[in-house]
Formats: sequence, C-alpha cells, structure tokens
Amino acid sequence: MSIIGITMGCPVGVGPEIICKYFNKTHNNKSIVSVVIGDRDVLKRCRDELKLDIEPIQWSLGQDIQSGQIPVFNVTKLNAKQLQWGSPNHETGQASGNYVVRGVELIQQGHLDGIVTCPLSKDSLNQGGFHFPGHTEMLAHLTGSTHYAMMLTGEKLRVTLVTTHCPIREIPSKLSKQKIVELIEITHSALITDFALREPKIAVAGLNPHSGEDGLFGNEEDLIIKPAIAETRGKNIDVYGPFPPDTIFIKAVAGEYDAVVCMYHDQGLIPFKLIHFSDGVNVTLGLPIVRTSVDHGTAYDISGKGVADPTSLTCAVNLAHTIIINRSDKITHTVE
Amino acid sequence: MSIIGITMGCPVGVGPEIICKYFNKTHNNKSIVSVVIGDRDVLKRCRDELKLDIEPIQWSLGQDIQSGQIPVFNVTKLNAKQLQWGSPNHETGQASGNYVVRGVELIQQGHLDGIVTCPLSKDSLNQGGFHFPGHTEMLAHLTGSTHYAMMLTGEKLRVTLVTTHCPIREIPSKLSKQKIVELIEITHSALITDFALREPKIAVAGLNPHSGEDGLFGNEEDLIIKPAIAETRGKNIDVYGPFPPDTIFIKAVAGEYDAVVCMYHDQGLIPFKLIHFSDGVNVTLGLPIVRTSVDHGTAYDISGKGVADPTSLTCAVNLAHTIIINRSDKITHTVE
Repeated sequence: MSIIGITMGCPVGVGPEIICKYFNKTHNNKSIVSVVIGDRDVLKRCRDELKLDIEPIQWSLGQDIQSGQIPVFNVTKLNAKQLQWGSPNHETGQASGNYVVRGVELIQQGHLDGIVTCPLSKDSLNQGGFHFPGHTEMLAHLTGSTHYAMMLTGEKLRVTLVTTHCPIREIPSKLSKQKIVELIEITHSALITDFALREPKIAVAGLNPHSGEDGLFGNEEDLIIKPAIAETRGKNIDVYGPFPPDTIFIKAVAGEYDAVVCMYHDQGLIPFKLIHFSDGVNVTLGLPIVRTSVDHGTAYDISGKGVADPTSLTCAVNLAHTIIINRSDKITHTVE
Repeated sequence: MSIIGITMGCPVGVGPEIICKYFNKTHNNKSIVSVVIGDRDVLKRCRDELKLDIEPIQWSLGQDIQSGQIPVFNVTKLNAKQLQWGSPNHETGQASGNYVVRGVELIQQGHLDGIVTCPLSKDSLNQGGFHFPGHTEMLAHLTGSTHYAMMLTGEKLRVTLVTTHCPIREIPSKLSKQKIVELIEITHSALITDFALREPKIAVAGLNPHSGEDGLFGNEEDLIIKPAIAETRGKNIDVYGPFPPDTIFIKAVAGEYDAVVCMYHDQGLIPFKLIHFSDGVNVTLGLPIVRTSVDHGTAYDISGKGVADPTSLTCAVNLAHTIIINRSDKITHTVE
C-alpha cells in the first residue's frame, strides 16, 4: 500500500474542485490511500457548490478512513466564505505554499510515500512570501536537491526541460553543456528507476529552427548540445540528436523514443499538451521524494464553475503510486 | 481553369520523387493544370528508379498536355546520372534557386496563375548564390513585397509567424509592435481574400511561457504584444490574446480561432506538424502572386529511397487553386 498526500494548491483555483471530484469518483482502496494537505472549510464549500455526496473530514496521522470521506490534513483555517473563486491574494498564495511545505515534511517524517500537487499561482505564491518561480524549484529547495528536472509524461509522450519558467530572451544564456548532460542523465535514470524501462532511448531536441540547419540559424547545437550528447553517449546512455524541434515529437509519439529532452518550456509543453491535454502528469525527477502533479494551471477563468476535469489528478495519483512501487518493492511507512 | 507551376526544389531532395508520385496519381483536369519548373532528366531518372508508368516531357508555354505525362518547363540541364540523392552542392543550390526565379517570371508574364514550391536546401541555395534564409524571403524579394508572411495551413489549424528562420537568441530583438500589427493585418486580409472567411477570428500567442504570467517570465507581452492587439482591435479586426503558447493551439484546433499568430518558427511549427504531419501546406501571404508550398524539408535522409509521401504536394496544389479562385472569380491567362 502507498499513502499519497494531495496538496490543495491555490484555494481559489481549480484545485479544490478537482479534489472533490476525484474523491467522489475514486474510492481509497487497499493499494492507494490518498489524503489532502489543505483546508477542510474550503473543500466543504466547494463540495456544497458541486452538490456532491462526499464529506471532507479533519484527518490526523494514522486515522482510519471511511469511504465517502475526503480525509483532510488541515494546514490552514481560511475564511472560506470570503474567498472568491479566481481571485488569489497574498493569503491564498501563502496557504498554497504552506501545503507544499507540510506535504514535504510529512514525507520526510515517514507519514506519506509521496505527494501529488494541485496548481498554485506563482504570482501569489511570491506575494505570500515563497520566492520560487514554481513548484519544482520550491520542492528542490525543500529537499535540498540540486540535480532535478521536470518531466511531463503521458501514455504517448514524455518530455523533460533544460530550462523551465524562463523568459525566451534568457534561454540561450541559461543553456550549458553541463545542464544538458545532467538532464540527459536524470532523464535516463528516471526512465529506469521510476518508469521501469530497461533500455530507455532518449531524443534531444535542438534549440533553434531546423536545429540550426548547420549553423545558419544559430550555433548552440554545435557548441553545446552536440558535445552534451557525445559525452552522455560515452557513458552508455542511448541518446540521439539534436533533432529539428518541429518533427522530433512526431517520432517520439510514434514510439521511436521514450523521452524527448527539450531546451525550453514551450518547446516541450506545446506538443505535450496537444497530445495529453487532459491526462498529462508532471513529475519532478531527481528528488529524494516522489512528487507528481497535475499538468494544468490554476485555471482561474473556470474556477468555481463546476466544469474542471479531474482526469489529470487521477493520472497523477496513479503515477505517483507506480513510481513508489517501482522505486521500492516493499513500501513501509508509519501509518501502515 | 488555373495553371499552376510546381518548382522542383533541390534536385537531390525528395522534390523530384513527390512530383513523379503526384503526377502518377493526379491527372491534369479541366480545372487544374500543373506543370513542373525544373529539370526533365532529373525527373526521368527518378521516374525510372520509382518504376512509374509516366513520362516527363519537355513542355513549352501553351503546349497541349496528354495524360500520362509530366510536363516540364526545363530550366536546367543537370547531369542527372552524376547527382547523388541527399548530397546537395552549389550546383543543385543554384538550380533550385533558378526554378523559383523562373516560376515567378512565368507568373509575372501571365503564363501561370500561381506556383507551388518543392523543398530546397537553404544552405546550398546560399552556396548557389541566392542569399536568402528561405523561399519566403526570396519570393518577397522577387516580387518586391515588403509586407508578407508565411502561413502553415491545414483542415484543423492555421498558423502565421512573426519571425521565421531566426535563431532563438535573436527572436526578442526582432519582435516589434509594428511587425505584430502587420502580421495580424496580413493574416486577417488573407483569411478573407484567400480563404473566403467572412468574419475571421484570430488568436495571438504570447512569446514567453504562460504568456509571461503577468511579467514574472518576460515582459514582451505587456510591452509589445498587447499594444499590437489593441491597435488591430481598433481597426475592427476580431483578434484575441496574448494566450499562453502551450494551450492556445488546443483551442484553435477545437475551432475557436481561424488562425494563430505565432511569435517564432517552432512555436507555430511544432503544433502544426503534430496536427498536419502529412497534409500541411505552407502559403506565403501578402505577395502579389499565389504561392503555396509543401510544408516539409528536403528530407535528404530518405531521398531516393522511394518512401516520400506526396500528400502535402497534392494539398498544396489544391490550395493554390482554391486561392486563385477565391482571389478572382474569373481566371484568365495566356495559355487558356
């Protein structure tokens, strides 16, 4: 059995709604137990608005869980009635950061096997005192990790990103041979340990259009990317490229590669979301803890409207469970 | 009837093969007559290798065309036997440039209604003395056009590009409010005149991840893109954005927008090729002549292997015909 904490994310985003819908559809079973790290009153209000027959209960470590309940490890006591869907502020930002901090602590203390995070607003997270560009960097900080990476994964496509939430103008200066080597290595290790692939095959996308077309449209391919590929091939990693970015994803989707190492956020996210719009999962590789996430944002434009799709959350919980199993045949934790 | 010239592109790329396959499958009919601007000997060799029952003939302006023929307006006399598939040089680059020059002249002289271009190597085009980053810029030069744009179009998605064959590091400095305004206007005009849409609805992608997320990851959205959208909305163009680049294409594919204005090559090409891998067409908007193109490259890795797919060429010829019809109810030309 694995016990997985779902951090609630921004209290006025779609997190509470997808959590209510997830628990309404998915009953905790013998292999996966999910609990929420969040705010019970916010979930109760959301449950009421959605008119679901499920009860958010205040849950303490080790407590038994009945079906029809949403077990909530209560971190905040927000005034749920005063919150407005789609209107985050420093208080909701602070709350969303605190759920993540508490989730990591509960893993480190042995109470949880992994966490699944719901979306938060990076802007209000910063307003709330957490100065990170996103979840991934925050989790790396909390776990003291320096070699980590974000992977987006689904049935047909997996992508990892050398740079993440970085303006386009800063990408070239943030790329380096060393970073690409590290990402290829992290991706390779994760495909083996977390995804149980024996001989993973990795593609690396170029940075520039047509992968630079022999230097006509940029030289990062020759100066940085090719040497990184050569170095990792020398370490017996089955890696290829750099490929023209506009066609490599078609090959990966066709099954030729197990993952595509991408140079920047939208290079990987644009194709990934087209292929896995509702069932994509975000995984942080290289952390000592297991962390997956839904692959969408707070979606403030539809918050509180009852139309959010919980599919990605379901996929993220299932993948967290799979990774926990793959990393260790025997799961042990204090509340078993 | 419209008469369309197909420029052969690089003699050692997939151009000759897709042309032979196209003519083998598609018979010239009353509404569309296609002729090749290229090299008959190269096409004969290719026909022989493919073992197709079709005859490349030297064609002169106004000459009748029989079924089973590939009518070739012969521009070069390359030594076909000495050419090696996939090995371009300055001679093939010069040849591929000359086909384009001749194609444009034949339109300007009233002999053709439009051209469809097969892929050439930008590198050998430059070696051959044509100093252009690609077809689009060359055609703009040949027709004296300063307000032009490349559109990739298919049944589900249309994208236009503010910057094209430009290294990632140069994109931010090449973007300007004026260029985006122009592209929105060109896109809007083309959707009306070339695609016969009465009230086209246009989306504009942001430059940075999450469209900058309120300035956290870049400020081009606030400084350049939003003012460009505001200006064009003031001119009664139905345009929206800037949208996060990783989700806007899903909305466009779902039919919410008729075209997506993209900031750079791969932002538009990655999603476009995933959706329209074999049936996409490249159109140059804003030219006084009608020009479409296959949306793939020379594909030297598969040249001469007999596996190239002519679908994009077929789609490109059909679209050129449609645009010719849409631009003018009555087609007139000298060889009718």
